[in-house]
Parts: sequence; structure tokens; C-alpha cells
Amino acid sequence: MENEIIYKIVLDTFSSTIKRASKLIESFSDEQLSQEVSASKNTGHYLLGHLIAVHDNMLPLLGFGESLYPELLEIFVKNPDKSELPKPSIEQLRTQWNEVNNTVLSQLKSLTPTQWLAKHTAVSDEDFAKEPHRNKLNVVLSRTNHLSYHLGQIGLLKN
Amino acid sequence: MENEIIYKIVLDTFSSTIKRASKLIESFSDEQLSQEVSASKNTGHYLLGHLIAVHDNMLPLLGFGESLYPELLEIFVKNPDKSELPKPSIEQLRTQWNEVNNTVLSQLKSLTPTQWLAKHTAVSDEDFAKEPHRNKLNVVLSRTNHLSYHLGQIGLLKN
Repeated sequence: MENEIIYKIVLDTFSSTIKRASKLIESFSDEQLSQEVSASKNTGHYLLGHLIAVHDNMLPLLGFGESLYPELLEIFVKNPDKSELPKPSIEQLRTQWNEVNNTVLSQLKSLTPTQWLAKHTAVSDEDFAKEPHRNKLNVVLSRTNHLSYHLGQIGLLKN
Repeated sequence: MENEIIYKIVLDTFSSTIKRASKLIESFSDEQLSQEVSASKNTGHYLLGHLIAVHDNMLPLLGFGESLYPELLEIFVKNPDKSELPKPSIEQLRTQWNEVNNTVLSQLKSLTPTQWLAKHTAVSDEDFAKEPHRNKLNVVLSRTNHLSYHLGQIGLLKN
């Protein structure tokens, strides 16, 4: 079916953006990632945790089961960098980054075209009937752009 | 047809990201946009010109005719911020930003599902037969992520 190529393109775009982010993150030492991306802005440490938490949250959102590290939401999404909440170490986050992304991507690869267009779990059946665009495809597009947004910031840590 | 909703979602994502960028750019004075997004990095002025040039280049790439301001490619894509090539003023760029985006979006709205999956103009028929993902949909997804990437940087200009 024609649409299969579309889902492949969308998934490949998400996957290659993750690869690009991973490469960048791996190129930085823990000390470099501890820096702010710009004066008085978020650190690479916070942004890394933030991205993991957002991707991890895709698991329940897309009906793939529970998040692997639900505690990250409080530290890295509901609170700012300077909250003083203790953060997992960068070393730990590097491992979680790979684990969460591998889990999300492998689940996405299993979606059928019908599932791609099905509603995500944060929209009711009634609302979805009126807003059929609130589907899993839309979530993946949105998270890819979210990742790109922060990748642009993390890239500023390069000397 | 089922795929029509997909093209609508992709186009709406590009369109709403442009809207978000416009709102941010409009919130900054010329002086704020003249600042570097981070120490010794690109200025908002350069990034604005860069985004206009990249979006303008979508016109020939997607078979929509010539770019409106082809001279911007040299200053803002082929050369870096500190090239010392004279730049159009921020005032002028603000106008071009709106004009180019309105043109690109209105052309995209006219695409049929078949056209979305057709090859873009930078890939030959032979290559496209082997790589059918190199289509107009892919270009729009890619430019949306490119915009998000730089939006994350431009957003750092906020105090």
C-alpha cells in the first residue's frame, strides 16, 4: 500500500534524528554536557534527561506499556534545570538514553498502517471522532521536531 | 482517501512550526536579533536569513518555480555568519520571511496525494526508482525539523 512508504519515512526521520543526537551526545565529555547551552539557560545534563523523559513518555502515550523510568518526568519535565532536585548522573542518563530510544523505536517498527492512524491514549474516543489528526503519527512527528529543537541547543555546546 | 489526512498533518506541522517561529521572531527587537544565540555562535540575524534562504530554496526543489530571493543562498547558506558579506537588514528579512513562507505554504496546500509522493527535483528518475523515499513529503519533513533545530537556538535570545 502506498501509505506504507509514508510511515517508513516518518519513522526513519525520527530514527535518524535520534542517531544524530546520540552521536552529538557521545562526542561530549560529562564536563561539556554539564555546561549551560547559553548563559543562564539549560545545561546539556538537563536537556539529556528532558529528552529521555519525553521519549520514555511515548510508551504509555502510544499504548506500548509503561515508561521505563517514570521518575524522570518530575525532574526533567515538570521542573526546571535549577530546581535543585537531585538529578541522575550523566553517566546513568547516557545508558537510559540508549535504552529508552531502542525500546520506543522497536515498538514503532511494529505498528501497522491502521495503528499509525489510530488515536493516542491521551485523547478520548469522542474527541478523536472530531479530531482524527490526534493520532500516533502526529505524536511521532511532534516528538521528532521536539528532539530537533533541543538538538539545535545541545549542538551549541561544541567549541 | 486515508492518506489525505497524513498530508494534512505533515503540512499543518510545518505551518504551525513556522507560526511559532514567526511569533518568536516578532517578539524580538532588531537589537535582540543581532545578538549571538550563544557566545561566539550565530546571530539571530544570520539564522533568520538562513531560514528564509532554505525555505525559499524549497520552491525550485519542489517544482514550484524559482526562488524569490536567490541571492540569500550565498550569504546565509554557502557562507557563515562571520563571512563579512553584507547582509540585508533585519527589517528587510522580516518582510522576506513572511513572503517566502506564505508562498511556500500556499504552493504546498495545492499538492495532490500523488504529487506529495513524487520525486523532488534534485533526484534523477533512475535514482528515484531505487530510492522512492526521496519525495516531496520527505523534503517538507526535513525542512520542518531544520526549522525546529534553529528555533531552539533562536529561542535562547529570550531574556
